[in-house]
Amino acid sequence: MTEGEAGMAQAVEPRRAASVERWQGESDVLVVGFGSAGVCAASQAARDGAEVLAFERAWQGGGTSAESTGQIYMGGGTPLQRACGFEDDPDEMAKYLEASCGPGADVAKIRLFSERSVEHFHWITDQGIRFDEDVVDYQVSTMPAPGKALSWTGSERAYPFCEIARPAPRGHNVNVDGTPSGELLMRTLIAGAQRAGVRVQPQSDVRRLIVENDGHVVGVEARIDGDLCCFRAHSAVVLATGGFVSNEEMLQRHAPELLRCGRPIAAETSDDGLGIQMGMAAGGETIRMGSACIVLGFAYGNRKNIRGILVNGRGQRYVNEDVYQSLHGEIALLRQDGDVYLIVDDTIYEPNPEDPELGGTTYPLLAVAETVEELEQELGMPDRSLTHTVNVYNENARRGEDPFFHKESCWLQALDTPPFAAIDLRVGKGPYSVFTLGGLRTDSSQQVQTSSGAPVPGLFAAGRTASGIPAQGYNSGLSLADCTFSGRVAGAAAAALRP
Amino acid sequence: MTEGEAGMAQAVEPRRAASVERWQGESDVLVVGFGSAGVCAASQAARDGAEVLAFERAWQGGGTSAESTGQIYMGGGTPLQRACGFEDDPDEMAKYLEASCGPGADVAKIRLFSERSVEHFHWITDQGIRFDEDVVDYQVSTMPAPGKALSWTGSERAYPFCEIARPAPRGHNVNVDGTPSGELLMRTLIAGAQRAGVRVQPQSDVRRLIVENDGHVVGVEARIDGDLCCFRAHSAVVLATGGFVSNEEMLQRHAPELLRCGRPIAAETSDDGLGIQMGMAAGGETIRMGSACIVLGFAYGNRKNIRGILVNGRGQRYVNEDVYQSLHGEIALLRQDGDVYLIVDDTIYEPNPEDPELGGTTYPLLAVAETVEELEQELGMPDRSLTHTVNVYNENARRGEDPFFHKESCWLQALDTPPFAAIDLRVGKGPYSVFTLGGLRTDSSQQVQTSSGAPVPGLFAAGRTASGIPAQGYNSGLSLADCTFSGRVAGAAAAALRP
Repeated sequence: MTEGEAGMAQAVEPRRAASVERWQGESDVLVVGFGSAGVCAASQAARDGAEVLAFERAWQGGGTSAESTGQIYMGGGTPLQRACGFEDDPDEMAKYLEASCGPGADVAKIRLFSERSVEHFHWITDQGIRFDEDVVDYQVSTMPAPGKALSWTGSERAYPFCEIARPAPRGHNVNVDGTPSGELLMRTLIAGAQRAGVRVQPQSDVRRLIVENDGHVVGVEARIDGDLCCFRAHSAVVLATGGFVSNEEMLQRHAPELLRCGRPIAAETSDDGLGIQMGMAAGGETIRMGSACIVLGFAYGNRKNIRGILVNGRGQRYVNEDVYQSLHGEIALLRQDGDVYLIVDDTIYEPNPEDPELGGTTYPLLAVAETVEELEQELGMPDRSLTHTVNVYNENARRGEDPFFHKESCWLQALDTPPFAAIDLRVGKGPYSVFTLGGLRTDSSQQVQTSSGAPVPGLFAAGRTASGIPAQGYNSGLSLADCTFSGRVAGAAAAALRP
Repeated sequence: MTEGEAGMAQAVEPRRAASVERWQGESDVLVVGFGSAGVCAASQAARDGAEVLAFERAWQGGGTSAESTGQIYMGGGTPLQRACGFEDDPDEMAKYLEASCGPGADVAKIRLFSERSVEHFHWITDQGIRFDEDVVDYQVSTMPAPGKALSWTGSERAYPFCEIARPAPRGHNVNVDGTPSGELLMRTLIAGAQRAGVRVQPQSDVRRLIVENDGHVVGVEARIDGDLCCFRAHSAVVLATGGFVSNEEMLQRHAPELLRCGRPIAAETSDDGLGIQMGMAAGGETIRMGSACIVLGFAYGNRKNIRGILVNGRGQRYVNEDVYQSLHGEIALLRQDGDVYLIVDDTIYEPNPEDPELGGTTYPLLAVAETVEELEQELGMPDRSLTHTVNVYNENARRGEDPFFHKESCWLQALDTPPFAAIDLRVGKGPYSVFTLGGLRTDSSQQVQTSSGAPVPGLFAAGRTASGIPAQGYNSGLSLADCTFSGRVAGAAAAALRP
């Protein structure tokens, strides 16, 4: 082990409480990280009567959530869903989540989350969040839209999910002056936490837990203004520092495929995996560390792209194009080796779609040809591969059918207006964005567990620091939903431990 | 937490050395598990001058390795390879392994393993293992064959691997009286360990490590004849208890897809994940816990099956059929949802192939028809899906080409002799066998590491208890090779710690 490695090792291995000479501060509950999970943990614990001190690395909280589009996946019959005319109930919501967040979805957590989703909606709105009572049309819905608070942010209407659970839109969008805003969401939640009496220690970098000899977690060590300061927790510590997508070493060990995707979704000061490492060092098990949200947003700027067909390097279709963009990323990267293309005709192609995620640039156009045969050749695909795929697709589309993948009929149209084009969605070329979903194993109260299922005394984890609702498989808004909800659960359980 | 959970939790959490009233025994090195990794760790440590005590749950050692076919993946120019007329060198071996054991293969370990492979061959033969100097013909090579010691046990000759590294057969088969035998391999290795002075404690169930207050691992607690006995290690403990394929709870948390496969490859007393759990409880990190060897042995009993075509439920080919059976399993289960079929014609089909793995039963025949059109209909595949695939395949095969997947020309033949048949290789129907590849993170000396890369003092892991050479992706013989080699590395490093 080099000196550098030793230094890093020491950084996360827990410190013994007996070695602490002076406690700089104390509180019932200490919360590490002040993104959506940490803020909600702190708020809930404070509302439940606990003294709460939260640590934030940056000047102010918000984390990656503040940089998001502010979508929260909620359902089961929320007031917004009802106002927009959609029927939903906890059972249908849970069925959909079990199907789309697996294999290996945490069924018990999904059930709890679905059953309490309406209550969670009220908790969120109690914080001061307001949802306009309008829904984004399904045919244009991917991103939140100005002034419209409800949108389709998963594969609910797509096959096979539409046959598993009754579809309903569940993306609850936080808008400010008509603009989607994770920043407003976080500003509002942080204000709510402050009203509830949460104290925040900004610019504090927590790098070690403090434990008793029996492993009980009793505090944290934070670097503040260059000094190492120890803080005591009377009840518990909640880890809420995000995932590990910004930690290349951890990605290499746990999810090497993700290193092929260019764009991690993470705030500058967040998601370096330190919370997960601290939890492991205190005895916590990690699970599903290879899981990730992998967005392939090929229809952000131009929803008509869903009318095109996605093919792999052998010219084969491999998915119904109307599943959600996060499922597209997962399938393209992990099942097709990232070797995928979108084929469109002239009626679909838009040279310069407005795509906030692409920073105004267009989707990368790889080839254009007057016939599909020529396009096939230009792409170096085998003879009669793409042409056969397009011919069969067109014949079926004219009948309003897709017997191969069951794309919904509203997206079906024959590709027959030249020129034809291939948009480059290969990994490294197309717009892939990723963040990690694996993390600490927690029980239903978000308490961290060891590999044998024992609780780590005094330690909770929430949000992307834990493996949560989206164990594998993702829908937009689900991380904010899981972070805010699991944060509340952790905060409540931590507060309940008050002496 | 229920009482049962608490009981299980206590079972693996380390015990403090200070609580030990009486040490039942002591040794320089304690080895937990006496399968191929444990036996080689013990042998090497004893050869290096250490006193060694090994713990085995069963009456005698051997573990899952004793139930294997006794193939060891070795290369780089072994005497057997040379005697059979094959050129190989460590660099070509390493290049192949890096390509086939990734993404995220441990390049440093692969390099060491490849460079020392010839030396490892000599070590194995020094133990008394003898290899007949004959090679199994590639066209019949999958299982070891009587009296033939060298065989192709990976995808070395298949595209794209054949373009990445010069192909060579590297499966070294242990035969006894002409019959493949992991049992003979283990009997021989165990005899070698005993000659080297290793003591074995049979029927002992190690369930806890013993640690000093600073986390240093200094012993094990074993249940022997109903009593809990503590044993002290002066140098180190080596965990070598296999993987976790027999632990359904761990599979559910870490590799839920594997639960769909019927047949775990594991000895009755092995692979319950306890070694991994003990290592985690002592601070070790686990990596790649979702990785597995997934064998889909569709050509065991009838190598001609490789001349058929593998298609998914939409009648699309998805792989060159001549890649190795472990890659087939991984691709079929994880990339095609286990929805795959083998299509053959009358010249290929054999009603009752001799297949030791299938216990004498035939491959499950799903449908038979006089034309491919009828077969397509019977299988419920979309119109013009399978028929197009077969037509294009046949035209190319007649030219000796496979522009889609580059199957080697020796396997190409048009499927044009009725009747045509579909063999059911869907997961749950076809012959899938699995074992886990994820485990404890170790450094190049096999010492267990924490999440921050710090060594866990006094603790080593080898074989399937650690994440090793086959980080993801497998070739037959690779686990025995990795187990025996990593066992030796761990044993040598543990012995070197003698006071």
